[in-house]
Amino acid sequence: MSKLLDDAIGELSRLPGIGRRTALRLAMHMLRMEQEDVARMTAAISRFRNEIKYCKHCNNLSDTDICDICSDPSRDKSVVCVVEQVGDVLSIENTRQYNGLYHVLGGVISPMQGIAPSDLKIDLLLDNIASGGIREVILAISTTVEGETTLFYLTRRLERFPDLKVTTIARGIGFGDEIEYADELTIAHALHNRMPVNRQ
Amino acid sequence: MSKLLDDAIGELSRLPGIGRRTALRLAMHMLRMEQEDVARMTAAISRFRNEIKYCKHCNNLSDTDICDICSDPSRDKSVVCVVEQVGDVLSIENTRQYNGLYHVLGGVISPMQGIAPSDLKIDLLLDNIASGGIREVILAISTTVEGETTLFYLTRRLERFPDLKVTTIARGIGFGDEIEYADELTIAHALHNRMPVNRQ
Repeated sequence: MSKLLDDAIGELSRLPGIGRRTALRLAMHMLRMEQEDVARMTAAISRFRNEIKYCKHCNNLSDTDICDICSDPSRDKSVVCVVEQVGDVLSIENTRQYNGLYHVLGGVISPMQGIAPSDLKIDLLLDNIASGGIREVILAISTTVEGETTLFYLTRRLERFPDLKVTTIARGIGFGDEIEYADELTIAHALHNRMPVNRQ
Repeated sequence: MSKLLDDAIGELSRLPGIGRRTALRLAMHMLRMEQEDVARMTAAISRFRNEIKYCKHCNNLSDTDICDICSDPSRDKSVVCVVEQVGDVLSIENTRQYNGLYHVLGGVISPMQGIAPSDLKIDLLLDNIASGGIREVILAISTTVEGETTLFYLTRRLERFPDLKVTTIARGIGFGDEIEYADELTIAHALHNRMPVNRQ
């Protein structure tokens, strides 16, 4: 077998969710791509891996020491939305409904996976709040067991700031979800937190 | 948003089956990989794209002008297994049941996708057979409509060699398949080509 092909398949199949069969399919696709397009792809990957930084203020990925969002004068610096990971920042930004800052924890507490509170960027968050100017912290954490544990832990740590408003994003039935397939806990929670319907 | 991250996501999501969400997941995984491991991956991709060749004899991917299989003196050069694509060579090699040569067509005839017989490496196959020494051609082509069309076309083109044995791989119920879910054509074919059962 071609060593060049074998190496490409071997390296690509180290990525999550990519087995040897998918790696072969990707390699064959790259053969059909222009040489310069493949070169641009590998260059983008290399630059990303070697040059990306973590924002010293919010732990988001950034090209500079302080990220675009933290250094944007038009953002409301009195509100901080705490998220698990970088992808959550992108998801919330895509809604165009939020104008505050973020804080990226870098995961959730998970004894099973050996992730302790000290592995997350929690102290940086507390330092930022202690520096003053933050009025509200929105905890936008997954409703998994690990997420709820993290939420509970953070809530406890934030008790040192009695004047701080601490909220979580609403739990309920997602848009497009069928109640038939929602679990009982979600339905019970959604019922309990029912909202008045706007009438004409 | 970080331009480095945006570029990496943009380039990765050009690959088939990889959307922006998967691209982000891959990018985040690369951040957790060692820098040198990512460098080895991009280098393997670049080398593969820039240095890989097609075997001048069988059209398989190769590091050299003639591939490992065609130049292996222990392989039986009197039998040629005709396959659609490089992945099929790997699949058949993995069975360790075949010791002949291959011929990679590079696809199947598909008027829908604009793939004509002239787009496939058919003339090279006929030239190889005309050069002599080939006793049998095994057509290992998919049982799709396009595959059957290609099979029919190849069979016609091979009529010029009346002494050549032309076979196709057996059609039937695959191992692990349930008859309940097999289509009628496959069942009818499998019934018609039934095999005697070995009895003690």
